[in-house]
Amino acid sequence: MSEAITRFKELCSPIWNLYSVRSLLYWDQQVLMPGGGASARADQIAALEKVCHGMLTDPHFKSTLEEAEEAAGEDIDRRYLRSARRAYDLAAKLPSRLVEERARATALAVEAWVEAKKTNSFAHFLPHLRRVFDLTREVAEHKGYAQHPYDALIDEYEPGMTTAKIDALFGGILPSLVQLVQAIAASPPLPRRILQQAFPFQGQHEFSRYLLESIGFDFERGRLDQSAHPFCSSSTSSDVRMTDRLDEWLVTMSIFGSLHEGGHGLYEQGSPREWNSTPLAGGCSLGIHESQSRMWENFVGRSLPFWKAHFPKMRSLFPEQLWGYSPEDMYRAVNYVEPSFIRVEADEVTYTLHVVMRYELERDMITRALDPADLPQAWNEKMQKTLGITPPNDSLGCLQDIHWSDGLIGYFPTYSIGNVVAAQLWRKIRTDLPDLDRQTEAGNHAPLLGWLRHNLHRYASSVSPEEALFEATGGEELDHRPFVDYLWDKFSKLNEIQRP
Amino acid sequence: MSEAITRFKELCSPIWNLYSVRSLLYWDQQVLMPGGGASARADQIAALEKVCHGMLTDPHFKSTLEEAEEAAGEDIDRRYLRSARRAYDLAAKLPSRLVEERARATALAVEAWVEAKKTNSFAHFLPHLRRVFDLTREVAEHKGYAQHPYDALIDEYEPGMTTAKIDALFGGILPSLVQLVQAIAASPPLPRRILQQAFPFQGQHEFSRYLLESIGFDFERGRLDQSAHPFCSSSTSSDVRMTDRLDEWLVTMSIFGSLHEGGHGLYEQGSPREWNSTPLAGGCSLGIHESQSRMWENFVGRSLPFWKAHFPKMRSLFPEQLWGYSPEDMYRAVNYVEPSFIRVEADEVTYTLHVVMRYELERDMITRALDPADLPQAWNEKMQKTLGITPPNDSLGCLQDIHWSDGLIGYFPTYSIGNVVAAQLWRKIRTDLPDLDRQTEAGNHAPLLGWLRHNLHRYASSVSPEEALFEATGGEELDHRPFVDYLWDKFSKLNEIQRP
Repeated sequence: MSEAITRFKELCSPIWNLYSVRSLLYWDQQVLMPGGGASARADQIAALEKVCHGMLTDPHFKSTLEEAEEAAGEDIDRRYLRSARRAYDLAAKLPSRLVEERARATALAVEAWVEAKKTNSFAHFLPHLRRVFDLTREVAEHKGYAQHPYDALIDEYEPGMTTAKIDALFGGILPSLVQLVQAIAASPPLPRRILQQAFPFQGQHEFSRYLLESIGFDFERGRLDQSAHPFCSSSTSSDVRMTDRLDEWLVTMSIFGSLHEGGHGLYEQGSPREWNSTPLAGGCSLGIHESQSRMWENFVGRSLPFWKAHFPKMRSLFPEQLWGYSPEDMYRAVNYVEPSFIRVEADEVTYTLHVVMRYELERDMITRALDPADLPQAWNEKMQKTLGITPPNDSLGCLQDIHWSDGLIGYFPTYSIGNVVAAQLWRKIRTDLPDLDRQTEAGNHAPLLGWLRHNLHRYASSVSPEEALFEATGGEELDHRPFVDYLWDKFSKLNEIQRP
Repeated sequence: MSEAITRFKELCSPIWNLYSVRSLLYWDQQVLMPGGGASARADQIAALEKVCHGMLTDPHFKSTLEEAEEAAGEDIDRRYLRSARRAYDLAAKLPSRLVEERARATALAVEAWVEAKKTNSFAHFLPHLRRVFDLTREVAEHKGYAQHPYDALIDEYEPGMTTAKIDALFGGILPSLVQLVQAIAASPPLPRRILQQAFPFQGQHEFSRYLLESIGFDFERGRLDQSAHPFCSSSTSSDVRMTDRLDEWLVTMSIFGSLHEGGHGLYEQGSPREWNSTPLAGGCSLGIHESQSRMWENFVGRSLPFWKAHFPKMRSLFPEQLWGYSPEDMYRAVNYVEPSFIRVEADEVTYTLHVVMRYELERDMITRALDPADLPQAWNEKMQKTLGITPPNDSLGCLQDIHWSDGLIGYFPTYSIGNVVAAQLWRKIRTDLPDLDRQTEAGNHAPLLGWLRHNLHRYASSVSPEEALFEATGGEELDHRPFVDYLWDKFSKLNEIQRP
């Protein structure tokens, strides 16, 4: 390795190590920090951001980066530098003051959101929401954009993505999705009494751990805990932490929450260990990340072979509740399609409608077309219009997600990108692994995980999202059709309906 | 405030915030980090140390410090600067490489120690122990010392303390202590059948929390968890985390472990919130810190009024075990004096003998008079000579404490300094609070905590240990006699013996 590159990597090491510490601070805050620690934690995160920002924007960093770029060949170092350059460019555009203010504001806003959600008090959250959007608008202006301020935001989570592309993607999906929802609504509902029971916490927790171990999550390099909003936080690939939520009367929340976060967790654990705390570590974009979580949650977890494999274990944990039921009963129940309030609990079909709604609201709050004070009303109207229902309170409405409090604006569309990418990967996987259904039915998820490890996970952040997709699918670009086909194929069989 | 001081405080803010993050990383590693995360965590801690060290030793830091020192009056800013100057001086003497190496070595050594203790394998720990002592010796050389390399180490934990002063202190205590142990051994043993029973975990945990709440620990600003070795880690005064250990057959371990860590925790929670993550925050030395933990553990927790207050609660949690017993039975049992293997479980009288032994061993490993490979043998011989017993294995012997793995060399003597200071404070408190026994008997610990808050805690790190002691006692210097008097007074009554 050239000396210039070694020198540059030495500069990067403390920065990316501190980034990995930040992930841990975040996890700790959500999972177990005492409430009184919020303000001090906000200061800690702000200090960490400031120090990283200072190191990244030091003129010496830039000149060393440029020397390294000069020296690098067309190998992995080139990718290391590309990823570091992206971080540098993002940081150099933002004044240190703004980075720090945003970190402090979002740490306090998350705390306020937890409280507001608990007490159903939007008013308690509003000043924080307004502050976060004000700062985010400033961020967009500093980053710059060609067409739309929102472009500057989405690019942070999904490099290369734009407002126009998202509009086109959603435009391609929506008409067919609306048709599907209507067709399902007109057909007899699937039976779901099996789920309309209480499932004690202890068994739920045990089943979640069992499922995560079954799909290959390594608990020597990770944890599962509980928090208000499920998430996966990877400090390094050796320490990947997920959370879920438990509700006695909604066992699907822990099952599919765990599988969802488990999909994120497997991707993170697949990042090569030697890349820990470097610009090459972790997932390459949120959309690609979400393709992994949605794949394990829906494509795998809501399939019949999956329930043939794991229903016996669930029945052994809940013998009373599941007496007389079959894997097929479970399969039908977990695929019940119905407009509902909570995005993370939504079925595969209506889910995208939730995402579109959030996308429109946050885009409009960025352009000031919508004032944050009017969010609850706008939310409720949009939900009534799109899904035909109105949430009874803000905790089940605009306060349900952590994203806006945490400054994650431009993030929601990546959920739908994830579904689209998952469907593209799934089509390729079914070709490459003709025995997949039989393997899944036998509870053997190793071939699927092996495929993902080999074709996607091991590249971690060394590839762009486009390259990752291209590499894994053998040459495809983002394409909404496999997703639409997958949904129609699955649900026309389940609900005995015809695709027009 | 002068501009020079404001500028300097701005420089300090990220550094002390990162120090407070380091405390959290340490806590996380001990309490819940997955085992596979050890190596990455070592890298994170090393990076954090390196960044802090770099900021502290930047020439700009020094010049800004000097300008601030020029500008400061005789107020709290002067104390802020004195504390910052101490950190600067310590850091400036240590090369960045050494700081980083030590951080990485101790993180790995702690992990190895946990494993070695679990499997009773000193060989597994030895290379780590050797490495830590090698690096610590280097540290002492860099720091410099007048008389003894160990002086350079103890000074880090107890500013102003020296090997010669410790020898004098221990010399003043030991003869009288040996007399006391012998006199107790020659008297009929106190009954302790009340403790020789199994106490289920759930009740122990509940009783610990109850006691901590009773003495005034604020759980909105702290936590209690479990770990292999009990400790208290304060990230800020708003987030103070303690751990204890539970053993079904040794209920005193959780009771006195919690009270001990609770004493540390109360001191940390008493540090003014506006000083969080600044050079003024936290305890002023380990000896003063230990005076707080030993006071709550022994002077309060092993007193008769304390058990009159809290025995009823304990009996309600363990009705079967405690049926027919009285607070007096508990008082006598928890004051049973007997040479034993484990320092943290030792009684008040033999405890100091444990400390002296560790002090001599680590001092000798620093001077190379003792090779780490010979530690188990030296340990066992010394314990046989001092306490008349030999541990059956290294887990109960030289592997019992976390300190050496964590590079905390020069730390053990502060435990005895803590006992001595506690006795001096206790004498003053009994004068200032003539109703203390009656208040304690009523379970009202607020007057005592109030006294400590007012006379000690609120000064946090703004004072030196000498100043803290002087301030709180109304003018005293370190004096071993109140400690010896306290022990003789208490145990001559309990064991019906005469002081010669």
